[in-house]
This record gives sequence, structure tokens and C-alpha cells, in this order.
Amino acid sequence: MNKIMIGGKPVEAFMEEIRKFHGWVAPGVLLGGFMVDYALELVGQEVEADAIVETRFCLPDAVQLLTPCTCGNGWMKVLDWDKFALSLYDKKNRQGFRVRLDVGKTAAFPNLYNWFMKLVEKKDLPLEVLNRTILEAGREVLSADPVTITRHYAKIKKGKTGVCPSCGEAYSLRQGALCLSCQGDGYYQIESPAEIFLKQAVSY
Amino acid sequence: MNKIMIGGKPVEAFMEEIRKFHGWVAPGVLLGGFMVDYALELVGQEVEADAIVETRFCLPDAVQLLTPCTCGNGWMKVLDWDKFALSLYDKKNRQGFRVRLDVGKTAAFPNLYNWFMKLVEKKDLPLEVLNRTILEAGREVLSADPVTITRHYAKIKKGKTGVCPSCGEAYSLRQGALCLSCQGDGYYQIESPAEIFLKQAVSY
Repeated sequence: MNKIMIGGKPVEAFMEEIRKFHGWVAPGVLLGGFMVDYALELVGQEVEADAIVETRFCLPDAVQLLTPCTCGNGWMKVLDWDKFALSLYDKKNRQGFRVRLDVGKTAAFPNLYNWFMKLVEKKDLPLEVLNRTILEAGREVLSADPVTITRHYAKIKKGKTGVCPSCGEAYSLRQGALCLSCQGDGYYQIESPAEIFLKQAVSY
Repeated sequence: MNKIMIGGKPVEAFMEEIRKFHGWVAPGVLLGGFMVDYALELVGQEVEADAIVETRFCLPDAVQLLTPCTCGNGWMKVLDWDKFALSLYDKKNRQGFRVRLDVGKTAAFPNLYNWFMKLVEKKDLPLEVLNRTILEAGREVLSADPVTITRHYAKIKKGKTGVCPSCGEAYSLRQGALCLSCQGDGYYQIESPAEIFLKQAVSY
């Protein structure tokens, strides 16, 4: 077998990067590596490309490891669509390529098909076996189309900043007269340190 | 001035990591570094912490650089709230700390205040000057509260996978009878390679 390269380096080095960044060598990020590598080759390394990822699971981390696009710099947008696909496109003319895991093509790799379609329990398909299948499959399970991006390409601008009259914290005025937390979307309850201490004492 | 440490390393090394990952040493990621570093100290390094970030701008990258939480591994959730705040919390008992940029405290650092409240043009506040102010301010412009997380803490599960009867691509059945793209949310138009070629020819 020829040496497998992802993002210009041996796949073993890429797998180590996955482990460090993502916490473990998740099959979705490994497979995603082949997808991003393919998309980069199609778009051309000389193109300054933005990314749209169609799932929040795993795939965004492959994009973040192999391209300059990150969650926080605005060059990668993540759609919560649960589709294992991504587009890289030239931010100047919105032309690029969409690469997807092609479920039809996975039929030749039953481990990959069974994992992707959730037909097998984790305990019955060890990670090492699944990842070996992914390395064997490589681009053979992918499909790509040239695309023109028609939505989600605009840079998201921050709105004007104000101070929420309820909590006194800064927020973007485009959220309304109050910040979203004070509008009822809050996700936390502030505790006094003593309460934290008591709860911990009770839990022992 | 004592050596400034972020995430256990000199801030200069952290700034180099920002440049490599985020593309440039964005003030929001640098400031975010102080916030994440503070939250990690409060929560305790021995705690396996999940993250909730209250803005999609910059701050998620500080979390990704300094904690095991990433966009793709599900340990970091990003709320599109436009508030410069984040919580790190123990995933077992949902107790942790919320750290925010405290706009009241920035009054002592006019560059920081003016940048954060968007009162100054980029050309009138060079990046180097702003970042120097952020290094001077450090935690002095932050506030922290002990919190219990009441929402958004659950691990997001993937739904059952099916094949969309319209496009033939795999998607999560929880999205409905068709994938979201075929429901009308599509963001791309597939081009034949010849069309791409013609458009490029015209644009020259």
C-alpha cells in the first residue's frame, strides 16, 4: 500500500493531530480528513477558501485541522443538518466543490456502511477495525460536485454593542431590547460560593 | 512586569498558537485566552469540564486552543448570543464558573472599552496597541460567577440515519421526511464542470 497522505503529511501524523485536538481518533474526523483533503485538491491550494460543513458532528474538526477556517474566525460555517458533507469555495466568486460521504459507495466497505448507518453496536466494531477500513476506503467512498454557493456565504457582521438594562452586561443590540439571556434563554443559575460548597458537601 | 502565563505557557507562545490556528492574533482570541485560563483555574484542572460559549466570534477558538472542548467533539456548545462570556462546568454535576468581559471594568482601559463597544475605527487603534492593552489588563477586566448549568448541558445525540428519497443522500431522520437541503434550505447549486469553466473564462 502506498503511503497515505492527508493535508500533505502522512496519515499517521494527521491521526496524532486528531487525537490531540479532538481528544481521540474519532472515525468521523479521520474520514473527514479524506474529505477535506479531496476538497482542497479540487478547489486548488492557491484559492482562499471558506468552508460550509453540513453537520456539527466530527467533520468541523477535520476542517479546522486542515484549513485556515475555524469556528471562531468566521471562515467555517456549521449547519446542523446531520449530513456528512462539506463545501470549500473561493470566497471571491463563490465557486467550489462539495464533497460528501456517498452512502452507495460504502456498500463495498461493510464496516463503514454499518457504522455510518448505525447498524452495528460500538462493542461489535472496535475503533481500530473501523479506522483501518476508513484508511482502506479513502476517497473511494466519496463523491464530489462542483458547486456555486447561493446562501450562507456572507460574512456575519457583529451588530452594534449596547448594555443590557436588565443584567448590565454588554450584548449586541440586534438581539432586541434585552440580551437573549434576560429574554428567557438563560442556561445557568448563579450560585453563591457557599451554595456550591453545601451542594458538594451533600453529594459526598 | 511578571511573565504572563496563559494555559500554563508564556503568553507569547499562546499568541503564536492563535496566529497558527485562527489566522491572526485577533484581540478577541487573546482576551478569550485570559478568560478561559481564569475559568480553568476556578473550575480546577482535575475537573473534566464542558464549555458553553455565548458568542460565535473569536471566543470559541480560545476555548478550542486551551481546553479539550472543540466544535466537532460536542464538548463545546456555541450560543449565537453576541455576549463575550463563557462557562466551563463539571459535566458530572453541572457546576462550574461563568467568566465574562465586564464592560464596567474596561473603563480603566479606554482602548479596550472603545474597541469592545465599537467606538473606534480599526485604523485609529492599531492591533498591536490594542493587544498590548489586553496584555496589560489581563484578568482585571473580567468577572466570574459560580454557576449551575440548567440547559444545553445534554450530549446531543445523532438521530437515526436514513436516505433522503429526493437526493439519495444520507441524513438524520429527525430532520423530517426529506433532508433539510431538499426541504428548501439548500445553499448551493451544482454546476457541471463545463459551466464552471465558462464562468471562469467570462470573468477574465
